[in-house]
Amino acid sequence: MAPRYAPSLRSRLAPLLLCLQTSFIVLFCFFTEIQKNSNIRGETFSSIYPGFQDVNVMLFLGFGFFFTFPVRYGFSATAFTLLVAVVATQWGIILNGLEPHRGKIKISLKSLVEAELCTASAMISIAAVQGKTNPVQLVLISLLEVSGFILNKWVLQSLLKVSLLNSIMLLHIFGSFFGLLLTWVFYRKGCELQFEKEKYDQKSGLFSMLGTLFLWMYLPTFNSVLVDDRIPGRKLKAVCSTYLALAVSAVTAASMSSLCHPRGKVNMTQMQQCILAGGVAVGVSVSGVQHPWEAMTIGFTAAVIATIGHQYLQTQMLHGFQCHDTCATLSSFGLPGLLGWVAHLLLEIRDCDDQTTAIRFAVFHICSLLITIALSLSTGLITGLLLKLEVCRRPPDNKCFDDQVYWEFPHLAERK
Amino acid sequence: MAPRYAPSLRSRLAPLLLCLQTSFIVLFCFFTEIQKNSNIRGETFSSIYPGFQDVNVMLFLGFGFFFTFPVRYGFSATAFTLLVAVVATQWGIILNGLEPHRGKIKISLKSLVEAELCTASAMISIAAVQGKTNPVQLVLISLLEVSGFILNKWVLQSLLKVSLLNSIMLLHIFGSFFGLLLTWVFYRKGCELQFEKEKYDQKSGLFSMLGTLFLWMYLPTFNSVLVDDRIPGRKLKAVCSTYLALAVSAVTAASMSSLCHPRGKVNMTQMQQCILAGGVAVGVSVSGVQHPWEAMTIGFTAAVIATIGHQYLQTQMLHGFQCHDTCATLSSFGLPGLLGWVAHLLLEIRDCDDQTTAIRFAVFHICSLLITIALSLSTGLITGLLLKLEVCRRPPDNKCFDDQVYWEFPHLAERK
Amino acid sequence: MAPRYAPSLRSRLAPLLLCLQTSFIVLFCFFTEIQKNSNIRGETFSSIYPGFQDVNVMLFLGFGFFFTFPVRYGFSATAFTLLVAVVATQWGIILNGLEPHRGKIKISLKSLVEAELCTASAMISIAAVQGKTNPVQLVLISLLEVSGFILNKWVLQSLLKVSLLNSIMLLHIFGSFFGLLLTWVFYRKGCELQFEKEKYDQKSGLFSMLGTLFLWMYLPTFNSVLVDDRIPGRKLKAVCSTYLALAVSAVTAASMSSLCHPRGKVNMTQMQQCILAGGVAVGVSVSGVQHPWEAMTIGFTAAVIATIGHQYLQTQMLHGFQCHDTCATLSSFGLPGLLGWVAHLLLEIRDCDDQTTAIRFAVFHICSLLITIALSLSTGLITGLLLKLEVCRRPPDNKCFDDQVYWEFPHLAERK
Repeated sequence: MAPRYAPSLRSRLAPLLLCLQTSFIVLFCFFTEIQKNSNIRGETFSSIYPGFQDVNVMLFLGFGFFFTFPVRYGFSATAFTLLVAVVATQWGIILNGLEPHRGKIKISLKSLVEAELCTASAMISIAAVQGKTNPVQLVLISLLEVSGFILNKWVLQSLLKVSLLNSIMLLHIFGSFFGLLLTWVFYRKGCELQFEKEKYDQKSGLFSMLGTLFLWMYLPTFNSVLVDDRIPGRKLKAVCSTYLALAVSAVTAASMSSLCHPRGKVNMTQMQQCILAGGVAVGVSVSGVQHPWEAMTIGFTAAVIATIGHQYLQTQMLHGFQCHDTCATLSSFGLPGLLGWVAHLLLEIRDCDDQTTAIRFAVFHICSLLITIALSLSTGLITGLLLKLEVCRRPPDNKCFDDQVYWEFPHLAERK
Repeated sequence: MAPRYAPSLRSRLAPLLLCLQTSFIVLFCFFTEIQKNSNIRGETFSSIYPGFQDVNVMLFLGFGFFFTFPVRYGFSATAFTLLVAVVATQWGIILNGLEPHRGKIKISLKSLVEAELCTASAMISIAAVQGKTNPVQLVLISLLEVSGFILNKWVLQSLLKVSLLNSIMLLHIFGSFFGLLLTWVFYRKGCELQFEKEKYDQKSGLFSMLGTLFLWMYLPTFNSVLVDDRIPGRKLKAVCSTYLALAVSAVTAASMSSLCHPRGKVNMTQMQQCILAGGVAVGVSVSGVQHPWEAMTIGFTAAVIATIGHQYLQTQMLHGFQCHDTCATLSSFGLPGLLGWVAHLLLEIRDCDDQTTAIRFAVFHICSLLITIALSLSTGLITGLLLKLEVCRRPPDNKCFDDQVYWEFPHLAERK
Repeated sequence: MAPRYAPSLRSRLAPLLLCLQTSFIVLFCFFTEIQKNSNIRGETFSSIYPGFQDVNVMLFLGFGFFFTFPVRYGFSATAFTLLVAVVATQWGIILNGLEPHRGKIKISLKSLVEAELCTASAMISIAAVQGKTNPVQLVLISLLEVSGFILNKWVLQSLLKVSLLNSIMLLHIFGSFFGLLLTWVFYRKGCELQFEKEKYDQKSGLFSMLGTLFLWMYLPTFNSVLVDDRIPGRKLKAVCSTYLALAVSAVTAASMSSLCHPRGKVNMTQMQQCILAGGVAVGVSVSGVQHPWEAMTIGFTAAVIATIGHQYLQTQMLHGFQCHDTCATLSSFGLPGLLGWVAHLLLEIRDCDDQTTAIRFAVFHICSLLITIALSLSTGLITGLLLKLEVCRRPPDNKCFDDQVYWEFPHLAERK
C-alpha cells in the first residue's frame, strides 16, 4: 500500500515556507524602505502603475493558468505558481537592491517590476519541470534560479557594461537552459513515453488558453516596461514591435501546427506554446529593432522555429538526451530567445557606422550569451543535484501531474 | 465512412495563412513605419496605453471566450478568434493608413486601436456564423468584412463628412447586418431546429460568462478610446454614459429574461448576449448623450429590445428567413445599434438651435445609415456567395460546433 | 411533487428589478449630472481611469468568480454578483452624493469608484449567505447593506471627523459582521453538517481561483485608489504595503493550511479565502503603515489568524452559534479587518508625539469601531428579519447551491 501514496509534505513545506517568510520579513525590516519621492526621472506613479499591474497579471495569472493544461493539475499549477512567484519576487527585491544602492534598498514600482521580471525567468525554468516536482522543490528552484539570474545580470552589467534592459531580457535564454538542465537531472527511468496523467481535455485546455492569452496580450507591456521613456518614442517602438511580432507569430504558429499534422488539425498545446515565440524573440532584440517588418520577420521566424522545435525536437530531447520538457521550454522560450539574440546582433551590426564598433559589439554580444548560457547551465546543474536528494520527497511516477497528492478533496473522498 | 469526417484543411488553412502573412510582412516592409513622435496632440504614451490594452483584452479574450458557450467548441472559439483578430487587425492597419497619410503609414497606439475597432466589427459578423464555418472561411470573412467596413468608413467620412468617431461606431450595425446576410447565404437545409452540438453546459456557460464580463467591463473604454480629449470632459462623459447604460442594461436584461420564462428562470446565454446592448447603443450615440438619464434610458430600451428580439425574433429569423444566427447578432448588436442611431438623431435634433440645421443633420444621419446598411448587406452577400464555394470545404452538418474537426486530441484517441 | 421544486421567482424578481431600475433612472434624471471639469485637484482622467477599471474587474469579475466554487453554482455566482453589484452601485452613487454636495450630484470617476467600494462591502456580506438565498433577497440585502454602510460612513465622518479613506476602509469589518448576523437569522435547522451541493470539484475550484487571483492582484489598487496623491508618495506607499502584505499572506496561508492537515495537504478554498487577509488588514490600517516590514508583519499575522479561524472557528460558529458562513466571511474579512484596526491603533499611537494626542486618537478610534460594529449588527439584524419573510420565497434546503432553481437548462431537459 505504502508506495501508492506520495510522501507527506507536512514536515517539509510549512516549515520551509514559514522560515523563509520570517527571514524575509527580518531582512526587509533592516534593509528596505519605501521610496519617498515617487517622481524620479520624469516617471510618475500613474505612468508606471498600469504596466506594473500588467506584469502582475502575467506573472500570477498568465503563468499560473498557462500551466493548467494537464487534466488533473489545475490547483497545483495556479496555486504553486502564486506561491513560487511571491517567494521569488521577495527574494528578487532583496538581491536586486543589494549592489547598486548604498544604504537601504528603496522599494518602488520600478524595483517591484524588476524583481517580477527576474521571477519570470524562474517561471520559465519551472515550466520544464512542472508536474514532476513538489512545491518544496519548486520554491527552492525559484530561489536558486533567481539568485543565478541576478548573478548573471550583475556579471553582464559590471563586466561587459550591458544595459539593464538587455541583460534582463536574456531571462528567456537563462530560464530555459536552467530548466533544461534541471529536467535532465530529474529524469526518471521508465517515463520515455508519457506520464499517466499528462494529458489535456477540453476544459483544461481552455483554462490554459486563458493563461496563454494573458501572457500573449501583455507581452508588449513586459517588453516595454523597463524601456527608458526619456528618449521619446522608444517605448512606443518596443510596444508596436512586440505587438506585430506576436500577431505574426500567432498566425504562423497556427499554420505550422496545421502543416505538421497529416489531416491538417492543429494541436492546442503546441499552438499555445508557440504563439508567444515572436514576442520572446523581439523582447531579446528589443533595443535593436527599428522597423515594423523587422519585428514581423523575427516573429515569423521565431514561430516557425518554435513549432518545428515543438514537433520534432521535443521527442528528440526526450529519447536522445533524456530531457522531459513539460511545457516545451526549449522551443517556446529558448530557441526564440536565441533567435532574438542573433537578430539583435545582426541589427546592431547593420546600424554600426564602422567595422571596429561592429566587431567590438559582436564580441561583447557573443560573450554575454556565452556567460549567460554557462551560468544558467552550471546553476541549473547544481540546483538539480541539490534537489534530487531524498530529503525533498519528490512525488512517485504515478502521482506526477496529480492534484490529489497536494490538495485536500474532502467531498471526493466522501463520495466513495 | 467518408462522409463522417470533415474534409481536411491541411491544403487550405496553412497555405492561406502563410501566404497572407508573408504578403503582410512585405506590405508592412514597404509602406509602414513606427511613429517617431509619440506625443501628438497632447496625447502621451501613458495616457493611451491602458486603453489600448483594454481594447486588446476585449478583442482577443472577450470575444474569444464570448463564443465558447457551445459545449464542444471552446478551442475553436478562442483560438480562431485570436487568429482572425490578428489577421484582420494587420489588414486594418494597412487599409486605414492608405488614404489620409501621404508617405508611409505611421503605426502608433492610435492606429492600432483604430484597426482593432474595425476588427471588432468583423468579430460581430463572425458571431452570426460561429460553429458553422471553418477557419479558412473565418479568415476570409474577416478580411472582406474589414475591407467593406473601412470602405464604408471612408465613404461616410469623405462624402458626408461624418467624424471618425461616429463613422467607426457604426461598426455594430455594419457588423451585424453583414453577419446576417452571411448566415442567410450559408443556410443549411434540415437545420431548422438546432445543430446537434449547439448546446451549453455549466462549465462552457461559465467560460462564456468570463468573456462576456470582459466585454461588458471594458465597453466604456471601447466607446471612449477614440473620443478626442482636447475638449475636457468629453472622454469622462463617454465613459460615465456607457458605464451607466451597461449597468441599467444588465439589470433589465436579467429581469426581461426572467419575465419571458414561464417559471421565472433566466436563460444564461440570453442574458449574456443582452447585457451588452446598452453599451452598444450608447456607443453609437456617444457624441449626442449629455445627461446620465439619457444614457440610462437608452440602456434600458436597448436591453428590452435585445431580450425581446432574442426571445422571439431569433426563431422567427430562423424559420421565416432561414437565418441561423448563432450568437443572436441581430438582437445583441444590430437592434441596439439601430436604437443608438435613433437616439443620436433625436438627441442631436433636440440640441439644434434652428430647424434648418436639424433637418440638415437628420438627412445626413439617415443617409449615413442607409449607406452603411446597403454596403454591409452587399458586401455580406458577395462574401457569402464567394465562401459558399466548394473549395472552402465547410464542415458537414453533424460536425458543426465540434472541436474535433480542427483540433488534435491525441489522448482521447488513445483511450478508445 | 410540489415541495421538490423551488418556488417560482417570476412574480418577484422581474417586477422588483424593473421597478428599482425605473426609480433609479428617475432619480438620476432629477438629481445627477456628469461632471464637467474632469481635472479636479490635479487628478486627470488618465491618472484615475486604470484604477477605476481595476476596481471594476475586482467587483464584477473578482467577486463573481470568487463565489463559483460550489459545483453547481457557477451561473448564479457570476450573474447574480453582476446584478447585485450593478444595483448596489447605482444606489451607492445616489446615497454618497446626497449630503456633501448641494445642487445636483456630480458623477465622476471618483464618485463611481467610491460607490463601487461601498458595493464591495455588500459583496462581503453576501459572501456569508451565498447559495442559501435567492436573487430577490440578494438584491434587497445589497440595497440595505449599502444604505447601512453609507449611514455608518456619514456618522463617522460627521461625528468623529474620520477621514473618507479611513471610514470607507472599514468596509471589511462592516460587511463581515452584517453578513454574520444575516446568516445567523437565516439559519436553517437540520443543516448542521453541509448542504447537499456545497462542495467543489477541480474545475469549479479553478474558476474560483481565477476570481481570487483577480481580487488578490488588484487589492493594491483597491487600497490605494482613494488615497490622496497630492502628498507625493502616499499612493506608492499604499500600493507597496498592500503588495508586500499580500505576498506574505499568500505564503503564510498556504503553509498554515498545510500545517492544519494531518498529511500536509492544502485545502484549496481555505487557501483562496485566506490569501486576501493581508491585503484586507493593510487596507484598514493603510494610513498608518510606514515601513515595509510593518505591512509584512500585518500580512503574516492576518494570514495566520484567517487560516486558524477558517479551520477551527468556522465549525464552531456553525455548531455553537448557528452561523453557516458560506465563504468564511468572518475569518477572511472580519478578523483581518479587526487586526488591521488594532495595527492602525498601535501604529498611530507610536507615531504620536505626546500622550494626549495618543489617548485622544485611541478614544476616537475605539469609538469608530464600536459604532461600525453596532450599526452593522443592527442593520444586519433588521435586514435578516425582513428578508426571512415568506414573501421572499427562499429556496428549499435541497435546492441550495443549485443553479437549476434559477437558470434555464433547455438542453439538459431535452436529453432526459
